[in-house]
Amino acid sequence: MKVLIVHAHHEPKSFCSALYRQAVQTLSEAGHEVAVSDLYSEGFDPVSDRRNFSSVLDAGYLKQQEEERHASEVKGFAPVLEAEIRKLESCDLLIFNFPLWWFSLPAILKGWVDRAFPMGRVYGDGKIYENGLGRARKRALIIMTVGGRQESYSEYGVNPPLSSVLAPIHHGIFWFNGFLPLDPFLVLGACADFGGGA
Amino acid sequence: MKVLIVHAHHEPKSFCSALYRQAVQTLSEAGHEVAVSDLYSEGFDPVSDRRNFSSVLDAGYLKQQEEERHASEVKGFAPVLEAEIRKLESCDLLIFNFPLWWFSLPAILKGWVDRAFPMGRVYGDGKIYENGLGRARKRALIIMTVGGRQESYSEYGVNPPLSSVLAPIHHGIFWFNGFLPLDPFLVLGACADFGGGA
Repeated sequence: MKVLIVHAHHEPKSFCSALYRQAVQTLSEAGHEVAVSDLYSEGFDPVSDRRNFSSVLDAGYLKQQEEERHASEVKGFAPVLEAEIRKLESCDLLIFNFPLWWFSLPAILKGWVDRAFPMGRVYGDGKIYENGLGRARKRALIIMTVGGRQESYSEYGVNPPLSSVLAPIHHGIFWFNGFLPLDPFLVLGACADFGGGA
Repeated sequence: MKVLIVHAHHEPKSFCSALYRQAVQTLSEAGHEVAVSDLYSEGFDPVSDRRNFSSVLDAGYLKQQEEERHASEVKGFAPVLEAEIRKLESCDLLIFNFPLWWFSLPAILKGWVDRAFPMGRVYGDGKIYENGLGRARKRALIIMTVGGRQESYSEYGVNPPLSSVLAPIHHGIFWFNGFLPLDPFLVLGACADFGGGA
């Protein structure tokens, strides 16, 4: 199986980064082909705009999705982004490995999503949900560390419940593109229990 | 009243950017003091790590929240970030003006949140929710453009409902910091109806 692990933590010594390395090792030893996007160590730029493209459809008005559609037709994605899109296209299992920051993805990972799922190439024109890139056969998994403890993220906790945090990612990013979400692997109390940042 | 509008669209001619300019004009003409963070035009860097700080607590292990707490004590935030934090601290009304990208904030705005709400300075040690920065007296508002039409984002629509998109932002970013969320100003079908990108 081809696996793509997209990792988004700035500290290699963190528990989150240890989970990432463990996932790479375990999946590789099990015989899977593992590709990685270690966004912080690679200095990935998460800002989405004309830098996504080597092609130009309309130099006077940036309509993101129209430029994406055009770039899909003329092979006009910037090389750094083309490499990410290819990894995404070829994987059977997509893993997001990240710490919960402000009840969502860290910006560097959100920007990977903003940039690496272009209309035309990855979705659109009927290529969506069960007919999306994953065609309901590819899988996607969240591995997430959370600084706080379980009780503050439950349905009765003071914070937004983790279900509300995960739902838009599972539904709107994974399943929208035809990736079936697997049950997430969550580590709560990572700061408190492991002596490091989440 | 002091208003801070954080705007996150890369195309000045877009409907979203027009909403931003209209908000600045209307609030200014009504006598309010309006500060802005126009993230794309300012080239804001949304990646959060040691670049947030001029100070260093532990050079060998980046624990984000501990570095934030330390920087809060020694005035150790990078100048560009210090300016954003001051705008946030002084506003009575915080407005996020953005297009919905992948059922969440564009990365450039998520990164503004990741970086401009540091522990110690903005929240923590009891400074949270009704005791947070806004102390339940400040307000916050989402102005959001959405490319798709209403029906696809309803509770029965194919996409994640907009309520599930807004809840973690309202609860986990605004209210977590003591800002009472106002009813959002949403424009759906922005692409279809206004001839431009959302």
